[in-house]
Amino acid sequence: MILEVAVLDVKATMEKEFEASFFQAQNIISSMKGYISHQLHKCIESNSRYILLVNWETLEDHVDGFRNSSEYQQWKKLLHHFYEPFPEVEHYQYIAGNPS
Amino acid sequence: MILEVAVLDVKATMEKEFEASFFQAQNIISSMKGYISHQLHKCIESNSRYILLVNWETLEDHVDGFRNSSEYQQWKKLLHHFYEPFPEVEHYQYIAGNPS
Repeated sequence: MILEVAVLDVKATMEKEFEASFFQAQNIISSMKGYISHQLHKCIESNSRYILLVNWETLEDHVDGFRNSSEYQQWKKLLHHFYEPFPEVEHYQYIAGNPS
Repeated sequence: MILEVAVLDVKATMEKEFEASFFQAQNIISSMKGYISHQLHKCIESNSRYILLVNWETLEDHVDGFRNSSEYQQWKKLLHHFYEPFPEVEHYQYIAGNPS
């Protein structure tokens, strides 16, 4: 299992609009091959910052499968215009703690 | 519930030593008031990078309770010398997705 981590800085004052689009967009990601679960959280210290955590079965399910899909084009259309700067996405492997 | 997020950059070549210390240190954090769960993950793209995710009942349980405790002194002794630079810690609130 792979954890995708993206810190999302949303344009100031667009937080509520971003959240509404995310509620739609999460149905896209949830339907993809290899998707396990996801969470979106909002930062307490930085008002326009969010973190998206997505568990995938494999790295390829995210970077090859999802990003090359037609569903990704819809995801992009719903969400990408909110970000400034455009987020860096990283992938992580479980080491310790409570399993997901 | 509050999610503590810390991206941890560990000094190069000290990854295995850091992981061994973390296995000890996680018993400290797990015993604290307000602690719910935690996970440590290792980055695929950056070899010396980790992410620590901790769920706390309240923000105060982490920033007042844990950080002012004697247990935090042990945590610090076990882990802080591995970090370069010293990590920025942020706190997040759940917005959407699968609940923890």
